[in-house]
Amino acid sequence: MRRDIRITDIRITPIAFRDGPLLNAAGIHEPWALRAILEFETSDGRIGISETYGDAPMLAVLAQARPVIVGLSPFDLNVMEERVRATVRPVAGAVEFTLAPGSHSAKNAAKVISAFEVAMLDLQGQIVGAPVVDLLGGAVRDRVPYSAYLFFKYAEHHGKPYAPDAWGEGLSPAQIVEQARRMIGLYGFRSIKLKGGVFEPAHEIACIRALSEAFPGMPLRLDPNANWSLQTSIAAAPELDELLEYYEDPTPGLEGMAELARHTRLPLATNMVVTTFDEFRRGVALGSVKVVLSDHHYWGGLRATRELARMCEVWGLGISMHSNSHLGISLMAMTHVAASVSNLGYACDTHYPWQEEEVIAGGRVAFDEGAVRLPASPGLGVQLDREALARLHEQYLACGVRQRDDLAQMRKYQPDFAGTSPRF
Amino acid sequence: MRRDIRITDIRITPIAFRDGPLLNAAGIHEPWALRAILEFETSDGRIGISETYGDAPMLAVLAQARPVIVGLSPFDLNVMEERVRATVRPVAGAVEFTLAPGSHSAKNAAKVISAFEVAMLDLQGQIVGAPVVDLLGGAVRDRVPYSAYLFFKYAEHHGKPYAPDAWGEGLSPAQIVEQARRMIGLYGFRSIKLKGGVFEPAHEIACIRALSEAFPGMPLRLDPNANWSLQTSIAAAPELDELLEYYEDPTPGLEGMAELARHTRLPLATNMVVTTFDEFRRGVALGSVKVVLSDHHYWGGLRATRELARMCEVWGLGISMHSNSHLGISLMAMTHVAASVSNLGYACDTHYPWQEEEVIAGGRVAFDEGAVRLPASPGLGVQLDREALARLHEQYLACGVRQRDDLAQMRKYQPDFAGTSPRF
Ligand SMILES: [Mg+2]
Ligand SMILES: [Mg+2]
Repeated sequence: MRRDIRITDIRITPIAFRDGPLLNAAGIHEPWALRAILEFETSDGRIGISETYGDAPMLAVLAQARPVIVGLSPFDLNVMEERVRATVRPVAGAVEFTLAPGSHSAKNAAKVISAFEVAMLDLQGQIVGAPVVDLLGGAVRDRVPYSAYLFFKYAEHHGKPYAPDAWGEGLSPAQIVEQARRMIGLYGFRSIKLKGGVFEPAHEIACIRALSEAFPGMPLRLDPNANWSLQTSIAAAPELDELLEYYEDPTPGLEGMAELARHTRLPLATNMVVTTFDEFRRGVALGSVKVVLSDHHYWGGLRATRELARMCEVWGLGISMHSNSHLGISLMAMTHVAASVSNLGYACDTHYPWQEEEVIAGGRVAFDEGAVRLPASPGLGVQLDREALARLHEQYLACGVRQRDDLAQMRKYQPDFAGTSPRF
Repeated sequence: MRRDIRITDIRITPIAFRDGPLLNAAGIHEPWALRAILEFETSDGRIGISETYGDAPMLAVLAQARPVIVGLSPFDLNVMEERVRATVRPVAGAVEFTLAPGSHSAKNAAKVISAFEVAMLDLQGQIVGAPVVDLLGGAVRDRVPYSAYLFFKYAEHHGKPYAPDAWGEGLSPAQIVEQARRMIGLYGFRSIKLKGGVFEPAHEIACIRALSEAFPGMPLRLDPNANWSLQTSIAAAPELDELLEYYEDPTPGLEGMAELARHTRLPLATNMVVTTFDEFRRGVALGSVKVVLSDHHYWGGLRATRELARMCEVWGLGISMHSNSHLGISLMAMTHVAASVSNLGYACDTHYPWQEEEVIAGGRVAFDEGAVRLPASPGLGVQLDREALARLHEQYLACGVRQRDDLAQMRKYQPDFAGTSPRF
């Protein structure tokens, strides 16, 4: 009987996959990106899956919370949340990365809740024969649009740990336009985001202008990841006014963004200053941003993402989605919740085109004109490829990376790289 | 197959049931209270049920929205919400009662969404074999506490339309204490609310003091329904400081409550100034209240109630529940959502002890030490008694009441009753 089904075991497998030499405000991506794959096993032999951060502090808090969840029903989401909140404690190393907001130790409970909730919703869907979106009130769209996520990049990683990727160097406006052409050609995206905060603002604005000329009418976004001072952000705004759909996290802090908002007609978007419900509360009081880029991995799950979407509606803010480097389980979780949110107003971010490997059966998720189609099969609609999982876990064991550090990686290229922020 | 199940018909049956001569700020309850019972029929022969307001404007907006929902799956809650919002239009007569916030025309869409959502969740639960609470993330408590809801009252209705109720007159402090003893004896409640705004504040405070002496340590609440001026409310606060758990809607308006909050250490509670998400937004900016008394019937359903609960958590507000005169279907819907909300901090209001009739099979819902136990059966856990439904519909046809009007009823007793507000 359904009410008797219990969670009998939780397996947490850290994995590593190849990631490109992508530049950002903090430095550069390491050759290996980390994730953790969760498997919730039930008394009736089902497996519910989830994907989250794989850094050492995240593995530590997942391990803290695991024992208090075994024995619950997959339907006990609210009790799971209470128990995780009561159990998770700060761990060493959970430092506050500006580029990986999911690593803030204040979000530890929310991150664990999210990882557990997705696996439990996958189980619920399997048990009742419904896709996860139906457990979130059903789909208001059957395909979820994503954006082309462009990066400044080198052609190869420092030390050449493996063969270079197919994307080549991406530093000049012409190379960035070429990167966009390739990505849109492969995936069909209909909006473009450039990760900035890497070079002088004038160069990044020149890249945006080149994209605007190469793709007339295509919505564009620039994300300097808080690496521009308030003055620099204000000075850049008039030029960007005509070019951008929204202006993402140019400058740090709720107060800084609120001050910038008074100097530009561009909507300000964020995944850095509004990353918790507490920051949402302070952000709306200050008038800091007009668009919140949600991320179920650190907001506390798919249900919390929907609650955030309701708050955005109430306060007149737009909502879309942020991403970190991820594989297909995360992509499907994002797709299910995004399909359920009526006021999702922009194509979501995804790093997915930068990954080549997968842990799900059937390989890479397909895109159709820049969108992911919602599967009709029960649960998340994807299953683990156990051979791939074992291979990516072996890569984790071998790669030596245990906590993302884009700054240390950058110093391999430029030993005097200061890493001060804001840099410009 | 589950995905093929569709809503094939929606029946809306207005009913009337006997209601006591209960006094309040607007006047007095009429001898007949109205509700509407909804039945959602599916292609596989199931019936999902719901209970909501039965006033003529509500019946009109329910009828507007009905056609756009037939054909949906019971899992299409989000599409249902979009369609209702796009369909419901203001109707004549949907005036803004201060005592029946569910009648505000601005809430028409939310009221219809709630009525439809409960019936669809009842169907979902039946289809997947789960109680409704499991579709809301599961229960964090297996019994939901309610409070003893006391009213000033006459012994009999004007014109004696039927035999008097068993409660007798309730006007003096001694009679109010006796009413409390009877209600607590029958139901086991562990907190007490007195509906005020009827007599001079000094008399109502004397009643609260008598309750405090008769029931030492029992949490007490007084609700003058915005019938006290700001000055009167401020003047009464020091005496009530020692007596009340919270001070409910003494004075009108978000601004009035915010000003009062600066003059009392009592938490202010409301079901009158924060009754929509828009008012929540304005209320937290003003600091108007510390406790929101939710009501799924006008907030937009059980999911909206959970969203409100999250917002209360984020803004540091308490949450509990308001009620109007209702029967067992509403009581069970309230119980399912209340059982799922971790931060529900107070016993919920219910008018249930004032009703004698029922539309559900098996008759009146039982209370156990002031609480309703969550049923484990699928859906809401209650079914319609068709004979009772037919009888209560006959009463609706015969009673002549089509829209609640406590003021007109009061003028039958006191032809010169002014009905000005605030009166004191
Ligand atoms: Mg960003
Ligand atoms: Mg009230």
